[in-house]
Amino acid sequence: MDARNSPRVSLDRAPAMRYEPGTMRPAMSSRALFVPVALATIAASVLTSSPVRAAAEAGGVDILSILGGLVLILVGAKLGGTLFESYGQPAVLGELLAGVAIGNLGLLGIHGLEPLRSDIGISVLAQIGVLFLLFQVGLESDVKKMMAVGASSLLVAVLGVVTPMVLGLPVSAWFSPTHHTLTHWFVGATLTATSVGITARVLADLDRTASKEGRIILGAAVIDDVLGLIVLAVVAGIIEAANRGAAFDPATVVWIVGKSLLFLVGAVIVGRWLSRHAFRLATRLRGEGVLLSVALVFCFGLAFLAGMAGLAPIVGAFAAGLVLEEVHYQELRARQRETRTMHELLQPIATFLVPVFFVLMGIRVDLGAFGEAGVLGFAAVLTLVAALGKQACSLGVLEKGCDRLAVGLGMIPRGEVGLIFAGIGATLTIAGERVVDGAVFSAVVVMVTLTTLMTPPLLVWRLRPLDGGSANR
Amino acid sequence: MDARNSPRVSLDRAPAMRYEPGTMRPAMSSRALFVPVALATIAASVLTSSPVRAAAEAGGVDILSILGGLVLILVGAKLGGTLFESYGQPAVLGELLAGVAIGNLGLLGIHGLEPLRSDIGISVLAQIGVLFLLFQVGLESDVKKMMAVGASSLLVAVLGVVTPMVLGLPVSAWFSPTHHTLTHWFVGATLTATSVGITARVLADLDRTASKEGRIILGAAVIDDVLGLIVLAVVAGIIEAANRGAAFDPATVVWIVGKSLLFLVGAVIVGRWLSRHAFRLATRLRGEGVLLSVALVFCFGLAFLAGMAGLAPIVGAFAAGLVLEEVHYQELRARQRETRTMHELLQPIATFLVPVFFVLMGIRVDLGAFGEAGVLGFAAVLTLVAALGKQACSLGVLEKGCDRLAVGLGMIPRGEVGLIFAGIGATLTIAGERVVDGAVFSAVVVMVTLTTLMTPPLLVWRLRPLDGGSANR
Repeated sequence: MDARNSPRVSLDRAPAMRYEPGTMRPAMSSRALFVPVALATIAASVLTSSPVRAAAEAGGVDILSILGGLVLILVGAKLGGTLFESYGQPAVLGELLAGVAIGNLGLLGIHGLEPLRSDIGISVLAQIGVLFLLFQVGLESDVKKMMAVGASSLLVAVLGVVTPMVLGLPVSAWFSPTHHTLTHWFVGATLTATSVGITARVLADLDRTASKEGRIILGAAVIDDVLGLIVLAVVAGIIEAANRGAAFDPATVVWIVGKSLLFLVGAVIVGRWLSRHAFRLATRLRGEGVLLSVALVFCFGLAFLAGMAGLAPIVGAFAAGLVLEEVHYQELRARQRETRTMHELLQPIATFLVPVFFVLMGIRVDLGAFGEAGVLGFAAVLTLVAALGKQACSLGVLEKGCDRLAVGLGMIPRGEVGLIFAGIGATLTIAGERVVDGAVFSAVVVMVTLTTLMTPPLLVWRLRPLDGGSANR
Repeated sequence: MDARNSPRVSLDRAPAMRYEPGTMRPAMSSRALFVPVALATIAASVLTSSPVRAAAEAGGVDILSILGGLVLILVGAKLGGTLFESYGQPAVLGELLAGVAIGNLGLLGIHGLEPLRSDIGISVLAQIGVLFLLFQVGLESDVKKMMAVGASSLLVAVLGVVTPMVLGLPVSAWFSPTHHTLTHWFVGATLTATSVGITARVLADLDRTASKEGRIILGAAVIDDVLGLIVLAVVAGIIEAANRGAAFDPATVVWIVGKSLLFLVGAVIVGRWLSRHAFRLATRLRGEGVLLSVALVFCFGLAFLAGMAGLAPIVGAFAAGLVLEEVHYQELRARQRETRTMHELLQPIATFLVPVFFVLMGIRVDLGAFGEAGVLGFAAVLTLVAALGKQACSLGVLEKGCDRLAVGLGMIPRGEVGLIFAGIGATLTIAGERVVDGAVFSAVVVMVTLTTLMTPPLLVWRLRPLDGGSANR
């Protein structure tokens, strides 16, 4: 835990700085707008020159557009992060908004960067980046401490799934009266799942991952993922059965629930045994970096298995961090004469890859969706329902002395999970009509965007006073 | 340099170990064969179950097959590396051969892992991995010291391009008498370019990157890349001109040479200025990991520019390491209270990504190509010419007390550069006939494979006695 003492978010110093602009500059706020736009313009004009791209693609992957994209993303992340930290906001909000700026230059007539939205290479790096974030968060958590708030996590998760779903149904029915009832159920389903990436990052930025609120939210997010999976399976199953004219078979749901529970229980029991033995076996390996390599294999392996069980890979990465304990690798670390902690070994990789995830999340925000006719009203009410619905979570907190509102706020972001749901809905049809059509999809995109962007400032606002003047315990 | 003192290759201890099997086990040599095969079998059966893949692909990228592939690659890298290190060979050879084993399970009837060969995600990680390797190698080098052996590097590069080309022409003419003369020129061209990744890694494993031989090879490899580019441009230009019935326009070659020289001179002069100022500007940034982030932007930025100039991105990463000096970031490091050196910050990322490159290189080796009728004789002579041709390089070494043979051996590997050449040849036609047909392409693949695999043991054999009993200075 000592490694977390470095000042990540300077909440205590930032407000003072605004009143002493002479002593230290509040981090290039004017330049922050100019530089990314200028860089983006240059990159856009260069990336779109077709002969160069053709030459680069000869090697199989368009590595040059990935490299150009990475430069832009890392520069944007640092400028955005610095700007927002200097005003007491978490770096992640700056990274998201830097991404929104990069991704929506099309509104200023610069379209050259739009391929970044769907660049496979950048997407792979981002998805691996968020695994590292959750692995690190898991390492700072502890199975016993998670279990201690387990009842609260379960209640929080159930309330956070049921309430938005129940509230979402009439909203969808009101705005899309001509659609099939199952469409409304699908819209309700997109409101259920919490995307834990944003909240985990804000908690880490605030150094509150191991707090009671932090543990309840993380545990609830894992259970939430299982519940979301069940909801999706049931709704999609009913739609497919309706199309075939057959009755819905509950056995498929039992299988889905069984698989995911098997993974979670297996990860905690077998994973712990495996971790201990894998690191012991690894003491026979030679060469540099054995400790880190085994940890990576463990993290990727559990993420893979979680995915195989139908869960999000980040749940597996979190589980890997949760069951991996220092005693498992003490012997290996001593043999390798490795002086760095596991956190110090993982941190450079996280520094590289985690911002890629959040900037890309911002890049994928399509501000154009906000302007579509007939969408905005639906989207606004949907967002309201999404945010307020999760506030029922605060009723599920059983512990005393716990900030219930913070738990409710932490459950708000829907992130990529909601988008995946909507994407699946767009591929399903009932009586030849798409379950999720263009307008509904756009509304879901806006809801996901707003719930993602509103969480960091809300959490900082709520958690800041609790620190007693210092965020860096 | 102090960070390099860790024992990477235990050349001094390994031979003794073979005679004292009781004291420390020589690292699971029997298990090394079983475990990867068993893992591969499981992974193959699991990865190919289609419903799961379909579910995973709903998110855009098939992240599960990437994660499964990474687990396999990292386990294979560590087992292979350990096995070879325990017999005094560099880890990279074990990584390559682990890859060959994984990639050719099809010969045992297990075809499930073959998609790894062309997995875009793994390929992106590998290509970024080799950038980190060359960036690190560049950091340990120094512009002045490179310039001190510059004349040798230039001569070595020129001899290493001309000799294999001249030897390759009659070989191609002998084995493919019915082909157009330009085919022979193209085959000659595939023999010119040195792929510096393998040699750079072996030099690093042996801790000899900064040696005179190491510097000559690295400098020659950079010049070689420029020369190879010129040869490719000329030959491809002549073929295209011949097809159009027009004369070849030398102006295109002047432009290609100009661009690449502009990049190299620009990288050294402007890059040095930029590095100093970028790190100074970055002292105003906040948050964790600023030092590493700026270094990453610098490395990726120069790799991008090298690619734009038509050079290999690794040349840019090497140049970035070359011009980046500790004085540039001393102030930033002090402000960030960063106790780790740049090498220590980069090393975890390299531990993760560099083996991905070498194992993937092995996976892409198609042992089936060795069995194709009519290919093997051509391939064998081509490989001989490729290896012997580069030995002319030793004549280019002007320095005294330098191991000329080691320089010649270090220039042998053709790696992916030769394959890219052959791939471009396969897309060109003369009078409706492909310049590089299937048989020629297979022969080039075999030549690239063998030159890549023969280099590590040859270099270790040659450089080991020079160490005076200890590889770890």
